[in-house]
Amino acid sequence: MKKHFFTPGPSQLFPTISKHIKNAINYNIPSISHRSQQFKQIFEKTVDSLKKLLNIPDNYQVFFIASATEAMERIIENCVERYSFHFVNGAFSKKFFEIALNLKNKPLKYEMDYGKGFNFNTVVIPKKIELICFTHNETSTGVALNVNDIYKFGKLYPDKLIAVDIVSSVPYVNLNYSLLDIVFFSVQKGFGLPAGLGVLIVGPQALEKSKYLARKNLYIGSYHSFIELSNYAKKNQTPETPNVFTIYLLEKVINDMLKIGIKNIRKNTDTKAKLLYKFLDNNESFKPFVKEKPIRSNTVITGELKNGSENIIKKLKSKGFVVGSGYGIYKDRHIRIANFPALSIKSVKGLIKQLSRLSI
Amino acid sequence: MKKHFFTPGPSQLFPTISKHIKNAINYNIPSISHRSQQFKQIFEKTVDSLKKLLNIPDNYQVFFIASATEAMERIIENCVERYSFHFVNGAFSKKFFEIALNLKNKPLKYEMDYGKGFNFNTVVIPKKIELICFTHNETSTGVALNVNDIYKFGKLYPDKLIAVDIVSSVPYVNLNYSLLDIVFFSVQKGFGLPAGLGVLIVGPQALEKSKYLARKNLYIGSYHSFIELSNYAKKNQTPETPNVFTIYLLEKVINDMLKIGIKNIRKNTDTKAKLLYKFLDNNESFKPFVKEKPIRSNTVITGELKNGSENIIKKLKSKGFVVGSGYGIYKDRHIRIANFPALSIKSVKGLIKQLSRLSI
Repeated sequence: MKKHFFTPGPSQLFPTISKHIKNAINYNIPSISHRSQQFKQIFEKTVDSLKKLLNIPDNYQVFFIASATEAMERIIENCVERYSFHFVNGAFSKKFFEIALNLKNKPLKYEMDYGKGFNFNTVVIPKKIELICFTHNETSTGVALNVNDIYKFGKLYPDKLIAVDIVSSVPYVNLNYSLLDIVFFSVQKGFGLPAGLGVLIVGPQALEKSKYLARKNLYIGSYHSFIELSNYAKKNQTPETPNVFTIYLLEKVINDMLKIGIKNIRKNTDTKAKLLYKFLDNNESFKPFVKEKPIRSNTVITGELKNGSENIIKKLKSKGFVVGSGYGIYKDRHIRIANFPALSIKSVKGLIKQLSRLSI
Repeated sequence: MKKHFFTPGPSQLFPTISKHIKNAINYNIPSISHRSQQFKQIFEKTVDSLKKLLNIPDNYQVFFIASATEAMERIIENCVERYSFHFVNGAFSKKFFEIALNLKNKPLKYEMDYGKGFNFNTVVIPKKIELICFTHNETSTGVALNVNDIYKFGKLYPDKLIAVDIVSSVPYVNLNYSLLDIVFFSVQKGFGLPAGLGVLIVGPQALEKSKYLARKNLYIGSYHSFIELSNYAKKNQTPETPNVFTIYLLEKVINDMLKIGIKNIRKNTDTKAKLLYKFLDNNESFKPFVKEKPIRSNTVITGELKNGSENIIKKLKSKGFVVGSGYGIYKDRHIRIANFPALSIKSVKGLIKQLSRLSI
């Protein structure tokens, strides 16, 4: 039976992936040296295509690492001497804060309950803060921030760096990168690729901060310091042997997306999200978990079930529709539905049909 | 034209890989959740098979990370408060030392020229040293240490931890893991897999050291501290979304190797190495770079060319045989030939035939 992966972790593979994997094997991509001209060309093409797709400024660099979790660690190591500030409203924004704690820094946080947004107007960021961290789309709950709220902090605090996690909203979220310093994601969600590759987009101020910390002889990590990553990226390489295979596949999927057009991908995501929220809003047995419509994510849609989610998740699976359970304490109360570009309108309609049957 | 990758970086894929990749896609492996029962089973099976293949004690844990370079960083973070000792005789043993420097520790080293071994009997490890680091097989030069020399340090210094890099000698090297504390490798060499996965084998004393540093409130990293990796590994999981696809493939290749038998794989490696060294020893235009026969690697065979290697590497490539260039300053003077299990005796004979023609 054909399966539809609506899971917000690893998710549905992009429809063209099988073909690209077959080609990669035929062209011996996993065997080529990461110091070869052929690899450098793949690196360069991937970065160029990504910049084109997401409209990333020329003077921003793209670093390939292993995961979004690694991105959080490297950002704290390279951009913070002591104080970062975190907007926490779910498991992943909390993880970013905790990583700063693990690294023996002194992070501060503004914490809201799961499923809630922030009252940004009341927040004053202390003077000592070096980096402000946002999770644009909380994968654990399905809350998406308004990007304009994020930009405001950049304007209000021009001396502080701004980092944004777009793990589960890329490539849907349309960002003005020039107002941000560090943006990161992993490829197994919106790009529909196998997991094992993280992408860090780093602006000049963030790189400067890393160099400043290095000059002060402070710890910025080793092979994956921004300085090392930047020096190698200038040569279209990575410090270590990277996940060459997935970098190759990423470039292929980005090019497929460029052919479809990013506007169409975003419009399509909106259409599918509308269908899903319409269903949830008009259903008796489960409701959208995020009550405030303006902060409902269009890429991770969370439903709360009166009678628990375990059974319905099992039944959906038996029909070929795999959705995510709730996160943490919500495990058995929520279902989370990923609405990534790899999932077609037809699949979404199929899921809604099954959900209607099961929830009556 | 069929290519034979004798490169000691990413290398020839194991012959069964195409089949396993096809199955992985058919079974939706890249889409499954890294928190699912299905993933936990893959994790457990991979660890169990690896322990069987390499004869790793039950009380040692296996951690999946992103690369061998990451392994070096995590080992220093988790096992050293200040002082590690490094046997340096090439680019990768040097990298391990430099990572300790980057992490603001105070590493010491015993350094020999490239291509040389160590006079182990004259070495006295200072009392303050916490960790002794060996690179079993220097990929940059083709020097392999005698494992008995490594074991001696464990016996002489029972209070110190021993870490061994087997990046380019696994699974050929036959280790007594119970005499070692940390062993690591990546999968794109001896296992013939795509790059992007590192494996850390950690014994109880190393984990204890990490816990001791944590109790002292010292820095041991964040999501990839030994403590985090250990806690997740106990649940057959990883802290972050890992490279699920390659973990799956690793398990499949290990099982193929178990069917062939590790003894046969080692015997086969010896046979192929003998053929290659015999050719080099009896050839006028290029000679083995490593002069002392007892420390010549059987898995990375380095030849030094009187008239430079660039031309011959190009010509070999045009015949379908891809070999490595020299490392660093030896780039244009050496060729490095990987002798990994994925390469058959027939391929090795084919390479030697081409080499004979080109070097006359």
